Amino acid sequence: MQDIPGPAIYRISFYLRQLETLQRASHETVSSKELGKALGYSDAQVRKDLTYFGQFGHPGVGYRVEELIQRLKKILGTDRVWPVVLIGAGNLGRALMSYKGFLRKGFQLAAVFDADPAKVGRRFGELEILPMEKLQACVHELQVRMAIIAVTPEAAQSVVDLLAAAGVRGVLNFSPTNLKTPPDVYVQSVDLALQLEQLSFRMSMGAGPPLAP
Amino acid sequence: MQDIPGPAIYRISFYLRQLETLQRASHETVSSKELGKALGYSDAQVRKDLTYFGQFGHPGVGYRVEELIQRLKKILGTDRVWPVVLIGAGNLGRALMSYKGFLRKGFQLAAVFDADPAKVGRRFGELEILPMEKLQACVHELQVRMAIIAVTPEAAQSVVDLLAAAGVRGVLNFSPTNLKTPPDVYVQSVDLALQLEQLSFRMSMGAGPPLAP
Repeated sequence: MQDIPGPAIYRISFYLRQLETLQRASHETVSSKELGKALGYSDAQVRKDLTYFGQFGHPGVGYRVEELIQRLKKILGTDRVWPVVLIGAGNLGRALMSYKGFLRKGFQLAAVFDADPAKVGRRFGELEILPMEKLQACVHELQVRMAIIAVTPEAAQSVVDLLAAAGVRGVLNFSPTNLKTPPDVYVQSVDLALQLEQLSFRMSMGAGPPLAP
Repeated sequence: MQDIPGPAIYRISFYLRQLETLQRASHETVSSKELGKALGYSDAQVRKDLTYFGQFGHPGVGYRVEELIQRLKKILGTDRVWPVVLIGAGNLGRALMSYKGFLRKGFQLAAVFDADPAKVGRRFGELEILPMEKLQACVHELQVRMAIIAVTPEAAQSVVDLLAAAGVRGVLNFSPTNLKTPPDVYVQSVDLALQLEQLSFRMSMGAGPPLAP
């Protein structure tokens, strides 16, 4: 399992979205070729990606859409509700939480922490901002395994150390810094610059030259 | 060119990052198999993706790393500097701009706009927040073709209409809403929820069950 490359997991997310689109259009089955086509993957690539996780197809039928959706959700871990803690109630933290669809089905904000005494005690949506001293007890009590870090790059390493010691096993990191963690703590860093690259590609290719030379 | 599927463009970004890693490790050439391996793509997938954009390989040599980097940068449009305007100087806008690495080489923040009279005239980094009435003239004057929208979902459509009328041809949209634009205006919407899915996958697979059942 640990040999599955990162991009393959992104592809699982893309397959799931495509399957949900097919389901809304009342498709009951789909072939690997059809599933790959809309995303630009070959049927061999689709089959290879899914083979990492088991046997899904039915001979002469292809994939059953509903069944594959349930199995991919299980693979992605979104078939359950994850309590999540947020560290950092500044601009980025508030922006993320007000970003509709960020915490959708499958993720629930359980508590918010900030190191700034001026912020502690204030409201954050329906929650009260807690001091960092309460982090460990809270993570234990609510059985939290997942955290979102939206602190300064300077503070990020000490925060992730605290989280790891408290029992958190997955961190979504919005601080643009490399974090060192024990092997059983997984860090997912968000690369917003990638999104700009996708845009500049479209501009370069489709929308003509950007500026007079 | 317009038939290139979206995920293929993401893969071009991933290939570029991998090539830059190889370059730092002093590799001069790479095969499609080696390039694909670290990312979990087959050599056929790598060749297929690159074939969308032309002929890159050299018989008996593979790809020349430096040459392919330059050509992929050109494809992604990051071989030049794009002036960018930001609409929305609220939490998310400020958070994005303070996010180190978001606007890296290739992108330069040229102006910031907000509809809120209380924000207009305030400083935003080295810039002054401008009123929306100045948008059109500013976009013309600075020859801006790219914008980042960090406004409320309710305001997003009218903002993108203004931008399109002013001559902007690419929009990075952080407002979680579907935007209608003319065919020559490209919108890239950022899916932060995808990042959480990647994290929950890792948690589900690698880090044991999240909670007692």
